[in-house]
Amino acid sequence: MPWAGPSGIEPFGQLITTGFPDDSDARFVFDRAPRSSASPPRRRPRHPPCRVQPHPLPLPAVDPLPERQDTVVNYGGEEGVEEKALVCRTVYAWREPVSPHLAAEREGMPVEDEEVRWLVDRWLAEEDGGGEVWKVLETAGGVASPGPSGTLQCDLYRSSRLPAVLVGDGRLGGISSTLSAYETLLLRGYDVGSVILEDRGLSNDRFLLSYLRKRVPVHVLPPIPEDPKDDLTDWFSESSSAFSSLKDSLQSFHSRRIQRLNSMQRKSKDLLWWPFTQHDLVPVDSVTVIDSRFGENFLAYKVKDKKIVPQFDACASWWTQGPDSNLQIELARDMGYAAARYGHVMFPENVHEPALRCAELLLGGVGKDWASRVYFSDNGSTAIEIALKMAFRKYACDHGIIVDSEKDIRSEGSVHFKVLALNGSYHGDTLGAMEAQAPSAYTSFLQQPWYSGRGLFLDPPTVYIKNKTANLSLPPSICHDQLCDTCFSSLTEVFCKTRDTSSAANSASELLGCFPDISCYAKLMTGGIVPLAATLATEPIFEAFRSDSKLTALLHGHSYTAHPMGCTAAVKAIQWYKDPSTNSNIDLDRMKLKELWDGVLVNHLSSLPNVKRVVSLGTLCAIELKAEGSDAGYASLYASSLIRQLREEDNIYARPLGNVIYLMCGPCTTQDSCTRQLAKVHRRLQKLN
Amino acid sequence: MPWAGPSGIEPFGQLITTGFPDDSDARFVFDRAPRSSASPPRRRPRHPPCRVQPHPLPLPAVDPLPERQDTVVNYGGEEGVEEKALVCRTVYAWREPVSPHLAAEREGMPVEDEEVRWLVDRWLAEEDGGGEVWKVLETAGGVASPGPSGTLQCDLYRSSRLPAVLVGDGRLGGISSTLSAYETLLLRGYDVGSVILEDRGLSNDRFLLSYLRKRVPVHVLPPIPEDPKDDLTDWFSESSSAFSSLKDSLQSFHSRRIQRLNSMQRKSKDLLWWPFTQHDLVPVDSVTVIDSRFGENFLAYKVKDKKIVPQFDACASWWTQGPDSNLQIELARDMGYAAARYGHVMFPENVHEPALRCAELLLGGVGKDWASRVYFSDNGSTAIEIALKMAFRKYACDHGIIVDSEKDIRSEGSVHFKVLALNGSYHGDTLGAMEAQAPSAYTSFLQQPWYSGRGLFLDPPTVYIKNKTANLSLPPSICHDQLCDTCFSSLTEVFCKTRDTSSAANSASELLGCFPDISCYAKLMTGGIVPLAATLATEPIFEAFRSDSKLTALLHGHSYTAHPMGCTAAVKAIQWYKDPSTNSNIDLDRMKLKELWDGVLVNHLSSLPNVKRVVSLGTLCAIELKAEGSDAGYASLYASSLIRQLREEDNIYARPLGNVIYLMCGPCTTQDSCTRQLAKVHRRLQKLN
Repeated sequence: MPWAGPSGIEPFGQLITTGFPDDSDARFVFDRAPRSSASPPRRRPRHPPCRVQPHPLPLPAVDPLPERQDTVVNYGGEEGVEEKALVCRTVYAWREPVSPHLAAEREGMPVEDEEVRWLVDRWLAEEDGGGEVWKVLETAGGVASPGPSGTLQCDLYRSSRLPAVLVGDGRLGGISSTLSAYETLLLRGYDVGSVILEDRGLSNDRFLLSYLRKRVPVHVLPPIPEDPKDDLTDWFSESSSAFSSLKDSLQSFHSRRIQRLNSMQRKSKDLLWWPFTQHDLVPVDSVTVIDSRFGENFLAYKVKDKKIVPQFDACASWWTQGPDSNLQIELARDMGYAAARYGHVMFPENVHEPALRCAELLLGGVGKDWASRVYFSDNGSTAIEIALKMAFRKYACDHGIIVDSEKDIRSEGSVHFKVLALNGSYHGDTLGAMEAQAPSAYTSFLQQPWYSGRGLFLDPPTVYIKNKTANLSLPPSICHDQLCDTCFSSLTEVFCKTRDTSSAANSASELLGCFPDISCYAKLMTGGIVPLAATLATEPIFEAFRSDSKLTALLHGHSYTAHPMGCTAAVKAIQWYKDPSTNSNIDLDRMKLKELWDGVLVNHLSSLPNVKRVVSLGTLCAIELKAEGSDAGYASLYASSLIRQLREEDNIYARPLGNVIYLMCGPCTTQDSCTRQLAKVHRRLQKLN
Repeated sequence: MPWAGPSGIEPFGQLITTGFPDDSDARFVFDRAPRSSASPPRRRPRHPPCRVQPHPLPLPAVDPLPERQDTVVNYGGEEGVEEKALVCRTVYAWREPVSPHLAAEREGMPVEDEEVRWLVDRWLAEEDGGGEVWKVLETAGGVASPGPSGTLQCDLYRSSRLPAVLVGDGRLGGISSTLSAYETLLLRGYDVGSVILEDRGLSNDRFLLSYLRKRVPVHVLPPIPEDPKDDLTDWFSESSSAFSSLKDSLQSFHSRRIQRLNSMQRKSKDLLWWPFTQHDLVPVDSVTVIDSRFGENFLAYKVKDKKIVPQFDACASWWTQGPDSNLQIELARDMGYAAARYGHVMFPENVHEPALRCAELLLGGVGKDWASRVYFSDNGSTAIEIALKMAFRKYACDHGIIVDSEKDIRSEGSVHFKVLALNGSYHGDTLGAMEAQAPSAYTSFLQQPWYSGRGLFLDPPTVYIKNKTANLSLPPSICHDQLCDTCFSSLTEVFCKTRDTSSAANSASELLGCFPDISCYAKLMTGGIVPLAATLATEPIFEAFRSDSKLTALLHGHSYTAHPMGCTAAVKAIQWYKDPSTNSNIDLDRMKLKELWDGVLVNHLSSLPNVKRVVSLGTLCAIELKAEGSDAGYASLYASSLIRQLREEDNIYARPLGNVIYLMCGPCTTQDSCTRQLAKVHRRLQKLN
């Protein structure tokens, strides 16, 4: 039973009910509620199956239209007590007292989840004539009872993440069912504001009070008279203290929550140190207060409006965010399970199922046909450092720098390893990973005085779209005939395939048709839940570390190497992304990911005068704005105002990289959703012209 | 209802029952089970409260002693069907049909959890005369119903992590209660082998079958006749296909599980690449197959014996493992909640509750009175790289290398930063962190040819115990009068305090009485669940990065910076460790952690002739063995056979660091448990002499 905090009218939304009208809760409330005057429903509920269409406009709740199943009960108003109105609304009702999904099926009235969610949002947004208004949404059945479409109700209503009042069970077995229901709510990210239950003489409340101490207040109601003729007057009178303590604790929960949310911008400015952020450039009121995530959307708290608003996470939280709302729920369950089953367990010389399964999936997927070993670490940067150490050793063995059998070192002092890398590439922020990248703002003396740049850095060809035309741009240092034919034709091929919007591949290696010796994976691998990385290598690389001495082993590891939480998440995410039964973006003919950003819109964008070029591939769409001088490059604030408009007016949470705006979705994000976001960006850029 | 796989006798353990004898399940089975011959219990259950003492020795189940409440039912044996015996045992019984905790309280017969667990372990270990034996342990009430002590039954039986058969609910609301119970089991790390439920005409089984598809098989039983006189003959006949499909799926679950466990050693050797491990030195049969963790214990699968055995995790899984079994359950719930509420969310310019709360706790705890900012990263190594970057910038600003206002750099080329560090110290394996450590096996050309060692490395004084005497050893390079008095007296003081076994402090800074400018925290901070690190800094350090340009900000970040999962775990763990109501190791007078390794035993250990010295502080006890030449140092395999004995015979999972054996417990591990482990090590070392 989720509720929205106080804002005396007390609307009571019972969106979905079965056993209507005789066996329904609305009937019960109407028959039993204590009142000074009970106004019967203007129109009695039709006999089900009945359906009240959602209203496109908010309507005053105290003046229900005939179409709306509102029941108004007035109470109080005596002895100086303020008169209040209880407005109960039932929107969908079925005759049979069974689960909504079964009633909907048997009585032939399906309802889409989106419609229900839309209704809830409208109802929450309705203005109710001022004063303190409490809105209570009663769900049908238990927390995990299916809604009309079959979606569990705890999932159906998750998008608005209303705080919950859990109606516990005072009967035999009720402690168990109450606690399990509580845990099901936690596994959906709900906050439970209060538990309330009927006393059935088994002291369930006493146990729950103790168990839930410091977590949730528990309130107990006297036994409800079983005589159906009892008008409950006495019961309501006996219950009033329980109800008022419930109200007090909800009020206090709500106040604490709002107070905390209001304070978070200031506190974050005072206590946190954000990476890649010049704090002086972030005004306190521009800090985004993120109350939760639901699939691809943040639920951001808007301090000014005191409202929680969904925002599309268009930077995929630094390219890590994979799950849609279904996968998020699965991952939550898996994370709880992995923590309970393993916590963390030591990895070297040990094996546990999540690490082994994850290794099998990587070797059978991105590592197929070339890799034979998986080396786990914590993030991309450490995975790169491990890869470099592997490469150095292999090279040293192959070139006689290390004498293979004993791993004795010859001519150590005279050997200076350098790597071949691309200009503009970026491998992470630890020194070893930075040494393998060309000088940039990230590697300057200001940032890391120890950086020296131990590489030969090549300018790569670039691909982009401008004026609806795909272009391949060669850097000045390479002219066409210097590129070997194979190389050039494979580059062109990759690009053309991409533009066919049909060929996102398992890996770059698959696109290029050549295999690496070592390769690193991180970010989205865990479905965007926790850090984990893997460095894959061929067997010859592994062989370069074998001997009978511990000293020649690869002595690089982190405390949480191959932690079961990360490996469990990776196993679920990798399987989920690739499985057409869970990811509708898998092209069934090719068993590969579809292009997710609409090609026509991308072309339109590329034709805007203020757009320099666009690149779109798989889940990424990057738009480079025309900018000159200090407006271009990493330090540029050129895109800031556009980004602010997108956030505040279009509910798109994008981040710029200098004068580049990129949009990033998850592998399961629907093409529709991508198109909606891209259309908003297009509109915004058009206006900017 | 957890079960142990097949091994024709079918013992049915109902350890705990209420409503005994008339309203109990044992009664039901005895009255209704189909049989060729029913042998009534040799001795009818006494009238409760009754209690059958645990047997110290395994007894043949088919010949129950009078003390044991065994009911034997024979069935089958007709038409070529093998005759089987069903043996039901009830150990604790209370008269009133209420929750066991309430019955135990009202009827005055408490039972300790440890006793129940001991009984289960004995019962599972009992030999049952060969042939295929299934053991089923029926729990009382729902999955989260309290046991006799008040511990939830899902927690009470977790230590043996038997696979579960979940008895679902076919009634109205039963989908919800079945799924919630399922989730409660997952949140304790159980595997659910099957769900079985009674058909009550609501098609609950159909929904559950679809929802749990690919996860758990669901079996449905025909409605149970309500007439109490019905002997269920017809019902059993109608149900036989459901029961046999249940049996088949459990059998298949069990076979798959055992097959996988048996294959894991081989596969791990073939596919994984362990850090710090010379694979050639790890025989395939020495790989530890970790099936799960329960608090401080691994549950390790012994391939030879086909048994799962608890092992004390004496290396605290690389010093990360903090939770006892209670905290593990809390963390599991929190991990599920954090994943469902947040997944991961972008950090820069944003704020979310777990990161802010974690920062508040760190600044109010280890950072109290000096730190003002928290910079999050993924592990200790990255936290050190960040700390170095902070230090370089501050030094450069303070010494005119960077002109403060514009952050222009003067004389960049001529500046070479070095750090002051201790010989033998270790800060992580990424290049930046390695540069700050003295040359060692980890930094050799073999490991990282880019390492140059950019520091001045000091030999620190060392403290240790030998022959029950505490010693302070100064390195040759420092003689006593070179140490300033303050420094020496504070060192001595620290050491004496330590030997008082009463002064584990919040931080080294607290012990030394001086504040750092920058400090790094990782490992145990998340309670040993996921990687997360924090670099704390003073406000002047933060100021050195402020300007109006993004380029002077600290440009170091990882994708999962301040990930909500890690921050949530850290918030729970930090609070849990410090709170005397959750951590009984907190000394109430000083509000600090007690010394956990028994001082007397430590002294005895220090007097053994094969022990060079011992150091014990807080959760750590390190024992250096006497070793010469190649037996000493990191590459030594000197302690290997001892470690193997500890693992295989004493069920202590320790890891050596060369010739040093260290024992590490969590902050909540009981002193009793530590003493038991240390006594085993002492015994083993004594025998070695």
